[in-house]
Amino acid sequence: MKAVQLYYPPEWAHCYGCGYLNAQGLRIETHWHPERGESETRFTPKPYHTAIPGFVYGGLLASLVDCHSTATAAAAKAQAEGLSLEAHPLRFVTASLKVDYLKPTPLGPELLLVGRAREVKGKKVVVETELFAEGVLTVRGEAVLVQIGEGFGRSGSAPGGG
Amino acid sequence: MKAVQLYYPPEWAHCYGCGYLNAQGLRIETHWHPERGESETRFTPKPYHTAIPGFVYGGLLASLVDCHSTATAAAAKAQAEGLSLEAHPLRFVTASLKVDYLKPTPLGPELLLVGRAREVKGKKVVVETELFAEGVLTVRGEAVLVQIGEGFGRSGSAPGGG
Repeated sequence: MKAVQLYYPPEWAHCYGCGYLNAQGLRIETHWHPERGESETRFTPKPYHTAIPGFVYGGLLASLVDCHSTATAAAAKAQAEGLSLEAHPLRFVTASLKVDYLKPTPLGPELLLVGRAREVKGKKVVVETELFAEGVLTVRGEAVLVQIGEGFGRSGSAPGGG
Repeated sequence: MKAVQLYYPPEWAHCYGCGYLNAQGLRIETHWHPERGESETRFTPKPYHTAIPGFVYGGLLASLVDCHSTATAAAAKAQAEGLSLEAHPLRFVTASLKVDYLKPTPLGPELLLVGRAREVKGKKVVVETELFAEGVLTVRGEAVLVQIGEGFGRSGSAPGGG
């Protein structure tokens, strides 16, 4: 299954978190499961992505939630509208990001993020995320995403930061 | 003036965001102004820290708010207790992080984060942050920080992720 981010056209594919054209980036990839209405992102942090030794850096966890949420928004919106991302690439940016660190996330194992769109309304999507390390829920995320249009990045006038 | 993070003892100085012992990290440094009760963090993103070309990646902005907030919490708590960080290094981790992306943040200029502790109560501190690019407020952050003790990182039982 092709990751949502791989549908982004080249002008929107430079994101440090998830752009396939960013050589120094994290290359986060998110997969959408239409039958469940859920997204999944898997990512194994590098040893240097540490907070206190032994635990994953909170800023990296926020970055994972961020890019996972923008991709989830694109997939959920496409499904809600009956569009294929192949023919209609959609790109969302983040208006607001909330991350609750429920427990320290161990550094080492692959992390799994599971996302669902709680609201799809016009150009706005709200995504809820749960992040698991070895089956244990350690982080809960909520993001408000806004769809951008083709002109974004030229005028610099649109909202969002993710 | 010595940055707050440079008071952290070596076992707490590996953070990818702000640890002076993390060779691959961002080395975020935060300065505390006791007379104003405010912290300041200055950071210039790298060209690859992009979201949509021309704008700073939201995950990096969340990371800046995160480490800036943990340092602000340490300094504010030390001031509230009348302690010197030199003699009493304090270390906070993040329990919750909220970032509102009010406008796209331009990639290129140095960014300035200004923080204040809204609440200092026991081991908990709430920090509010404003992030400016060329004098324009683009991001607003709120973080809940929890002070950790000397045993943290050995037992792995304490809360927090930042």
